[in-house]
Amino acid sequence: MENTPRIITLTTDFGTSDVYVGVMKGVILNINPNVKVVDITHDVTQQNIHEAAFTINAAYRYFPKGTIHVIVVDPGVGSDRQAIVCETENAFFVCPNNGVLTYLLQNIETDVNYHKPNAVIIENPAYHLPQVSNTFHGRDIFAPVAAHLSLGVSLAHIGPPIQNIEQLPIPTVQCLNDTLIGEIIKIDSFGNLTTNISEDVLSSFLFSSAQNKSLESALTKDADDLKFEISIQNIRLKKLNSSYAESAIGEVLAIINSFGLLEIAINTGNAEASLGVKIGDNVVIHRSGLTS
Amino acid sequence: MENTPRIITLTTDFGTSDVYVGVMKGVILNINPNVKVVDITHDVTQQNIHEAAFTINAAYRYFPKGTIHVIVVDPGVGSDRQAIVCETENAFFVCPNNGVLTYLLQNIETDVNYHKPNAVIIENPAYHLPQVSNTFHGRDIFAPVAAHLSLGVSLAHIGPPIQNIEQLPIPTVQCLNDTLIGEIIKIDSFGNLTTNISEDVLSSFLFSSAQNKSLESALTKDADDLKFEISIQNIRLKKLNSSYAESAIGEVLAIINSFGLLEIAINTGNAEASLGVKIGDNVVIHRSGLTS
Amino acid sequence: MENTPRIITLTTDFGTSDVYVGVMKGVILNINPNVKVVDITHDVTQQNIHEAAFTINAAYRYFPKGTIHVIVVDPGVGSDRQAIVCETENAFFVCPNNGVLTYLLQNIETDVNYHKPNAVIIENPAYHLPQVSNTFHGRDIFAPVAAHLSLGVSLAHIGPPIQNIEQLPIPTVQCLNDTLIGEIIKIDSFGNLTTNISEDVLSSFLFSSAQNKSLESALTKDADDLKFEISIQNIRLKKLNSSYAESAIGEVLAIINSFGLLEIAINTGNAEASLGVKIGDNVVIHRSGLTS
Repeated sequence: MENTPRIITLTTDFGTSDVYVGVMKGVILNINPNVKVVDITHDVTQQNIHEAAFTINAAYRYFPKGTIHVIVVDPGVGSDRQAIVCETENAFFVCPNNGVLTYLLQNIETDVNYHKPNAVIIENPAYHLPQVSNTFHGRDIFAPVAAHLSLGVSLAHIGPPIQNIEQLPIPTVQCLNDTLIGEIIKIDSFGNLTTNISEDVLSSFLFSSAQNKSLESALTKDADDLKFEISIQNIRLKKLNSSYAESAIGEVLAIINSFGLLEIAINTGNAEASLGVKIGDNVVIHRSGLTS
Repeated sequence: MENTPRIITLTTDFGTSDVYVGVMKGVILNINPNVKVVDITHDVTQQNIHEAAFTINAAYRYFPKGTIHVIVVDPGVGSDRQAIVCETENAFFVCPNNGVLTYLLQNIETDVNYHKPNAVIIENPAYHLPQVSNTFHGRDIFAPVAAHLSLGVSLAHIGPPIQNIEQLPIPTVQCLNDTLIGEIIKIDSFGNLTTNISEDVLSSFLFSSAQNKSLESALTKDADDLKFEISIQNIRLKKLNSSYAESAIGEVLAIINSFGLLEIAINTGNAEASLGVKIGDNVVIHRSGLTS
Repeated sequence: MENTPRIITLTTDFGTSDVYVGVMKGVILNINPNVKVVDITHDVTQQNIHEAAFTINAAYRYFPKGTIHVIVVDPGVGSDRQAIVCETENAFFVCPNNGVLTYLLQNIETDVNYHKPNAVIIENPAYHLPQVSNTFHGRDIFAPVAAHLSLGVSLAHIGPPIQNIEQLPIPTVQCLNDTLIGEIIKIDSFGNLTTNISEDVLSSFLFSSAQNKSLESALTKDADDLKFEISIQNIRLKKLNSSYAESAIGEVLAIINSFGLLEIAINTGNAEASLGVKIGDNVVIHRSGLTS
């Protein structure tokens, strides 16, 4: 990796109509002109830490090992909330300690090769801008710390270890006998509704784990034996799609999406607008006559 | 070109508020950390293949030879629509085979140095991500194929040749005696209305081809001899501007724009909003008393 | 700096839904494939030169020495307005001569190390695209000139010197006895209201200059001695915050922001929407019983 440029990604709620994002890039490139800066998104709903946590978890795994991810959704800027760097097997995360790493840490903990992440509080002013404002730590602290990390500064120089990385309470899937209750946790710009029901959880709910089948193959092969109903608002769906195009245009459908999560969508339509749903609304699955 | 970085451009309808674009960049940089990724736009109207076709045709020619253009406006993702790579004299295009190359191919075909483009179906899974979803081929297929192309993989390794690249029916200009009927094919964020009437077509309509004059010079020199009227809604325009500022603020005007197409605009105003027009609306030109 | 890539930044009102920005990047990379192109923003309010002037002044100082800043907010494109390159101690600015450098030049003039900037009119067509349209100088003139500058072309080759760089009239702060009258000059996407009252001006107004105190320390230490009232609409504020979080959620507050300017904001809220204010509205400060 010696001769390849390091990557710093940015995930913020700053939007792109103000100078904030451009200024962070200027600060980074002033410290390390050879780094590549990549935008994840700057349109996290303002001050929505949960959405930022979903976003970085959905994105980070696709970047090269050693990538430095900066997440600035920071309603507590200027207060005594901590700023941290968290190092995992594959990446660095530079962010306020306010829960933006929640999904990521839960994800890491379920890894077979789990190593407890190494995390420090950002304290050493040598890696800040000379003047630190109370309103824009993205510029004054997070960007310069990320740039210094990209130059090889070790965590030990950034600040002292921290044990407690903040985690948000996140909605869990509930299973009651033959009913699985999940909820919408993300709506994308197409109006597609991502639930918190993972392919694995759905598979376990619908099949005996001993069968160790993938959900898709099972649904394809044993469709006759498998009876279930997915409910959202007054819609009832009795199958999982393998593609959007498998349904007629305008039809509501259920599919395992690219996050590996159950999604409710409308082929070439907008499920959010058509169903009038929002983040937190329930998606319920009933099973009957299942293979076991 | 040995020591200069290759460029991959992205044109999608993903918007920038979700992780999709960032994830595609991560996938690309994971395969080729030295490539430059440049956004054309991610705000193509969702699932509007025609607009994507206009967009890539308007942009590609300004990039260096060898640039790899990824276009993902893909309502058929997960269906049996093909994914292709198309190589032309100057560039590579990686996209679903759904018509997004329509304008581009028509443009190439009118080139004096036309070579039939070399195109293949993307089939070899060695150049995909290990797991391919049915909902996000931008991440799983198009981005990794583009990254491998940037490393020098040849088309022959990507998949078998394809003869039929899909082309959309696109609106043609009709000429009936002294009337030319075109239509609005693109409206930009300023509300400027681009028609499908090219400078060449307009020039041929207004002048004898033997004169071989440029439209601009002719309009300037022979303005007295030249009588025409451009109609859109209830507006009648009797001249072509050479700049927006040549008209009074708020005035509707006609101009050859930076795409080389006839445009209806309002100086420092928004023609779309003021005229209440939309894509597909007619723009009609009548001629009389012309030089011949 | 020999082996580090040069940086070109872009500030425009083109939005990101059309091809214009992507095309400018293509033009730049075609001339210098090794340059880094960084977006400041493309969402300057359309044709708002004052906002562009605020934007580039807020951003440029964070970029490495030698950065080339391209600003294209250009309602006069195609008219006889000049195009210029302006070189300062630390940067180059490539833009129409229409006032977009106003804040920047005022800022430079107050520097202790002030050198009169070196500026030229862009005239030499060798540094333009071969064909120059009358509607898109961002592509045809500003982008290629910036790219050639990044390759080391000197200003003398671009065109003849220019003495008069256009400056807009900008709102000044008025001080009448114990009243300071400023106004809102920028509203960001959070709805935070930036005024034209700088920390220095506010400090001088509230304290004798001989004390040479920073505003923040003074406000902290001498809060009891210091009486002032900041008025906006029907809101009266009697203190300066040191952070947003210091106020209750939903509360209107005043703070020195990251631009070094007095800002009116609402903790985790949107002051623009809640107060119903706009650019140009007054913010008034009365003082009484002050230390002197």
